[in-house]
Amino acid sequence: MNQNSTHLLCGNGASSAITLSQSDIPEFGKNTAWSVKKSTMSSGVSAGIELIEVNNGLQTVSILATRGMGLWKIEREGCRFGWDSPVLQPVHPAYINLKSRNNLGWVEGFNELLCRCGLSFNGPPGIDDGAASPLESDVTLHGQIANLPAESVEIEFETNAESETIVIRGIVREASLFGPNLELQAEYRISLGCDEIQICDTVLNRASRPAELELLYHINVGQPVLESGASWKAPIQSLAPKDARAAEDIATPFTYLPPTVGYAEQVYFCKLNGDSQKRSAAMVKSSSGNSGFGIEFDLQSLPYFTIWKNTQATEDGYCTGLEPSTSYPNFKAFERTQGRVVNIGAGESWQTVLKLKTLADNKSVEAFSQKIDAIQGDSQPVIHNAPQSGLQPE
Amino acid sequence: MNQNSTHLLCGNGASSAITLSQSDIPEFGKNTAWSVKKSTMSSGVSAGIELIEVNNGLQTVSILATRGMGLWKIEREGCRFGWDSPVLQPVHPAYINLKSRNNLGWVEGFNELLCRCGLSFNGPPGIDDGAASPLESDVTLHGQIANLPAESVEIEFETNAESETIVIRGIVREASLFGPNLELQAEYRISLGCDEIQICDTVLNRASRPAELELLYHINVGQPVLESGASWKAPIQSLAPKDARAAEDIATPFTYLPPTVGYAEQVYFCKLNGDSQKRSAAMVKSSSGNSGFGIEFDLQSLPYFTIWKNTQATEDGYCTGLEPSTSYPNFKAFERTQGRVVNIGAGESWQTVLKLKTLADNKSVEAFSQKIDAIQGDSQPVIHNAPQSGLQPE
Amino acid sequence: MNQNSTHLLCGNGASSAITLSQSDIPEFGKNTAWSVKKSTMSSGVSAGIELIEVNNGLQTVSILATRGMGLWKIEREGCRFGWDSPVLQPVHPAYINLKSRNNLGWVEGFNELLCRCGLSFNGPPGIDDGAASPLESDVTLHGQIANLPAESVEIEFETNAESETIVIRGIVREASLFGPNLELQAEYRISLGCDEIQICDTVLNRASRPAELELLYHINVGQPVLESGASWKAPIQSLAPKDARAAEDIATPFTYLPPTVGYAEQVYFCKLNGDSQKRSAAMVKSSSGNSGFGIEFDLQSLPYFTIWKNTQATEDGYCTGLEPSTSYPNFKAFERTQGRVVNIGAGESWQTVLKLKTLADNKSVEAFSQKIDAIQGDSQPVIHNAPQSGLQPE
Repeated sequence: MNQNSTHLLCGNGASSAITLSQSDIPEFGKNTAWSVKKSTMSSGVSAGIELIEVNNGLQTVSILATRGMGLWKIEREGCRFGWDSPVLQPVHPAYINLKSRNNLGWVEGFNELLCRCGLSFNGPPGIDDGAASPLESDVTLHGQIANLPAESVEIEFETNAESETIVIRGIVREASLFGPNLELQAEYRISLGCDEIQICDTVLNRASRPAELELLYHINVGQPVLESGASWKAPIQSLAPKDARAAEDIATPFTYLPPTVGYAEQVYFCKLNGDSQKRSAAMVKSSSGNSGFGIEFDLQSLPYFTIWKNTQATEDGYCTGLEPSTSYPNFKAFERTQGRVVNIGAGESWQTVLKLKTLADNKSVEAFSQKIDAIQGDSQPVIHNAPQSGLQPE
Repeated sequence: MNQNSTHLLCGNGASSAITLSQSDIPEFGKNTAWSVKKSTMSSGVSAGIELIEVNNGLQTVSILATRGMGLWKIEREGCRFGWDSPVLQPVHPAYINLKSRNNLGWVEGFNELLCRCGLSFNGPPGIDDGAASPLESDVTLHGQIANLPAESVEIEFETNAESETIVIRGIVREASLFGPNLELQAEYRISLGCDEIQICDTVLNRASRPAELELLYHINVGQPVLESGASWKAPIQSLAPKDARAAEDIATPFTYLPPTVGYAEQVYFCKLNGDSQKRSAAMVKSSSGNSGFGIEFDLQSLPYFTIWKNTQATEDGYCTGLEPSTSYPNFKAFERTQGRVVNIGAGESWQTVLKLKTLADNKSVEAFSQKIDAIQGDSQPVIHNAPQSGLQPE
Repeated sequence: MNQNSTHLLCGNGASSAITLSQSDIPEFGKNTAWSVKKSTMSSGVSAGIELIEVNNGLQTVSILATRGMGLWKIEREGCRFGWDSPVLQPVHPAYINLKSRNNLGWVEGFNELLCRCGLSFNGPPGIDDGAASPLESDVTLHGQIANLPAESVEIEFETNAESETIVIRGIVREASLFGPNLELQAEYRISLGCDEIQICDTVLNRASRPAELELLYHINVGQPVLESGASWKAPIQSLAPKDARAAEDIATPFTYLPPTVGYAEQVYFCKLNGDSQKRSAAMVKSSSGNSGFGIEFDLQSLPYFTIWKNTQATEDGYCTGLEPSTSYPNFKAFERTQGRVVNIGAGESWQTVLKLKTLADNKSVEAFSQKIDAIQGDSQPVIHNAPQSGLQPE
C-alpha cells in the first residue's frame, strides 16, 4: 500500500477550481472525511490568489500559493490559529509595492500564520554595501519571497504503513539576470487526523556561484490563543532584548499583555538549546493553558530565534511572532559582519524541516510544554538586561 | 412598497459578468428601461478591471470598482461627461507604480470623471517629516485610494414613495500593519430617470488611535462641455492663484481657453459660501450655455475648493477640474501646519454627501446657475492677485 | 485572391483561448499545416500573460502580447532560437517593479529572444536632468515598454500573388498625463513556410508637441547556436569596446567563449555599413556553421548597433545580444548630448522594418554570411582598442 498519486493544482491547464475528496482518490483515507479544495479568490485585493484548503479530518490548513506558498491560517473545531491583521484579507502581490512606504511596503500584505521572509535578504530596508552588486543591495523589508507566486503546485497522496499524508508542494523563484537565482521548494505534509503539519523546505541555489540566503519563518499567533496572561516558552540558553524598548520589560519577557492601545512592539533575540538531534521547540499558550500553538525546528538550519511581542490593540493587529531563522532580523549588512548570513554553494541546497502543532486542550498543551522542558533539562537560561544586536549560538 | 433587494456584484462567487434589467427585478422600475451591467474588462491595461455600468433610463454611469470605486464617465443621450486623458482606457492598478516617475506614477492611471485622491495623503509627493512613522511619511502623488480595488461590491434596489434608486456600494481599504487603517465605504445613489447622482462616502478609521485623513474629489470635465469660452462658477467668498503661473491670468479666472498647445496648468484656491445648511455648489458650462456639469457638496466635510485649469491641447488632456476637498492639494506637511488635515478618532468616521448633475440644455444650466447665485447672494467675491498657499474658510 | 481576413485575438470579447487552423480560414494556406494558438498562461509569474503561438508550417513564433508584444522564442524542427535566462518563464508585468533593485528591476522579467527597450528612455537608470519634466527624468533600466500590455491585438490573414502571410498586430501605449504619449504599433509578418519574420514597427507621438524616443531591439541568442567557437558578424565600419572590461578582449571581439563561470559581460559599440538602401545585417553562427540566426535592419531608423557578449555559465544566462537601436544604450542624458536621441514631431511617427531569420543548415548560414560580405564590400573595419562611449555613423 505505498501507492502515491500526484495531481497538479495550479496553472498549466489545471482548472481554476478543484475539489478532491474521498470519492476521487478511492485508495486514500477511506476512514476520514478529508478534502482538498483549490480555488481562485475573487474579491478586492485577494482577486487572483490561488488558495489551497486542506482538511485532514481534524483541521483545515489554508495555503496561499500566490503569496509564496505562505500558510494563511489553520482552523480546527471552530478555533482559528492565525491572527487578525489590519490587512484583513490575503493580498495579491500585484497590489504590493515593496518599495512603497520607505521600502516597508511588505507590511501592506502581512497577515499570515506563517510567512516566509527572505530569500536574498530579510530584515529592515537599506542599502547593503556588502552586496554582490546593485542588483542585490537594494534591500526592502523582509524580502521578496512572500510576494512571489508559486508554480508547479501539486498535491500528492502518500500512503505508507504509519500514515496517510496529503503533501502540497510548490516552487517559488527569486531570480533575475545578474542577480540571485534561488528556488524555494516548499512542501507541506499534512497527515490525516493529525494535529501537526510538517514543512519541508529546500532552497536551491541555481546559480553557477555561491549565493547568500536569509530566511526567517514569521509564525504569528493572535487571538484566541494570545490573550492577557498568555505566555511563550522555549528551551532558552540566553535571551536579550533587541533594543531599549524591549529592555523596558525584560523582567517579564515570557508573558503577554492584553490588547493595549499604543503598545510599541518588543523584540527579543534568543539562543535556544536543542536535543541530541539539535532540534528545538517553542510554544505560545493561552492563560489557562487550554489552547496553544507549538513549533519544532532544527537548530542546524535555523540556529537563531526571535520573539516578536506585538500586543497592540485588537484592531491594530494583536499578535506575537515565533521566528526561527537563519539569522537575526537585523539589517543584512550587519548580520554578514556577524557571520550569520548563509552561503549556499553553486547548485547546492539548504534544507529545513519545521513542524506546526495546534494544541486544543490542557493535555496537549502540557505535553508540548514537557517536551520543551526536556530539551531545557537542567540548564539555566541567561537573561540579558541590556540590548544586544544578536546572540551567537555556541 | 419599501422592499429593497441587494445583490453581490464582484467577488466571493459573483459571476464575472452580470446583467440585470427590469425582468430580473420585477418590482423595480417597471416603467423605465433601466439596466445594470457588471463586466470584467479584458483589453490591455484595463484587463481585470471590474466595471459597473448603471443605466437609469436617462444616462449611463460607469463605475470602476477595481480603481477605488472611481467614476469613469457618464453618458447621456450621446454626450459623454468626462474627459479625454492621454491615458485612453482605465488602468488596472497592477500596471500602476505610484513610486515611478519621481513618485508621480499616479498620472499613468488618471482619466476618470471623478477620482478620489487620498486617504492618508493627497497632493504632491515628498517626505512628510510630521508623519506618525516612516510607514506614513513616504508621500506619493494623490495617494493610494484610486489604485486599490473595492471589495464587497453590491447593488441594492431601493424603492420608496418618492423614487426608485439603484445603489452601488463598495469598500476600499487603505491599511497596513503599523500604518493607517482607513476604510472607504463608497456609495453611489442613482435614481431612475434622474440627471443627478448622489455620492455618500464614509471613511472609517478602524485603528485604535486617531488617524489623519486627506481626501479630494478630483472631478474632471473635458469636451464637449469644456470648450473655448466655457466658464466655471461657484459662490465665491475669495479666490487666489496658487502660484505665479496661475496669477498670470488672474483677470480671467472664470473662463476657459480653447485647447492650447503648450498651456501650463493653472490652479486657483477658493473659499466658497454655503447655504444655511453649509452646502455649496459649482459648475462648468459650455460657451453657449446649452450644456454643463454641476456639483453640490457640503462645506462642513469638504471646506476647501480648488479649480484646476488644464486647457492643454486636446491630445494632451484638455480638461478642467472642480475639486472639493478636506484640504488644499498642497504638500501634506504644509497642510498640517495650516490645520487643514482632518483627524478621525479611533473607530470614528468622516462622512460626506456629494451630488453630480449632468446639464443637457439651457434651461437646466440656467437653473443650476441660479442655485449658485442664490448661495452667493449679495456677497462680493474677493479676488487675490498674488499667489496664496491656501485660503482658510471663516 | 487578395482577400484578407482579420480577427481580434485579445480582449474586447475575444475568448481567452483561440486556435485557428486551415479549416477555420478555408481560403488561406491550403497546402500548409499552419496554426495560430492564442492562450492565457496560468502558472506562477506567467499567470495572465496572453501568448500567441504562430506555426507557419516551418517554425513556431511565440509572441507575448502582455509583455509589450515581445518575441519570446522561435522553435524550428526541435531547435529553439532564444536563450535560457535565469528568469525561466515569461513574467507578467504585475510582478515586475521597475524601481526595485536600484531601478534595475527590469532584469527580473528579461528572457525574450526579442525584447524592445524604450520608448521614452533606454539604457541604465538615473535622473535625467535634461528631461522635459520630473515625469520623464526618473529613468529605470531599459524603459517601460516591455512591461506594458498590448491592446487591440489582432491577426490578419493576408494573401497576395507572392505569399500567404499571417500578420499579428498589437498596440502598446506608454502614456501619462503631463508625460510622454507614445504608441507602439507592433506588427509581425510571418509568411507560410518561410524562415524569416518581418517586424514592422511604428511609434506614433500622440502628443501635441515633439517627443523624444529611444528604442533598442534587444535580440538575444543562446544555446544551441551560441557555443564555444560561435561567432558574430556584421558589415563593420568601426567597432569600439564600451569600457575597460570589453577592451580586455578587443583582439577577439567576434568569437564567443564557452559558458564561463564568473564571466563579466562585454559590450561593443559599432558603426555598420549599409547597402544602397541603407539596410544592414548581422548574424550569430555556431562553431561549425551549421546553424545561426540572422537579422536585417534599416540604418536610417536604427543607425546604432551594439553587441552584448554575456557568455556566463549556462545557469546564469549564457547569451549574446545583437542590438540595433536608435541610440547606444548609454544613459539618456549622455546620448542626448551626442545628438543620438530621436525627436518625433507632434502627431508624427517613427518607423522601422526589421527581419529575423533562422538559419538551420550550412547552406543558409553561408548565404546569410555572403549577404553581410556583400554589404561590407572592400571597406576595412576599424577596430578601436580603447573604450569609446559611442561611435557616430557618418
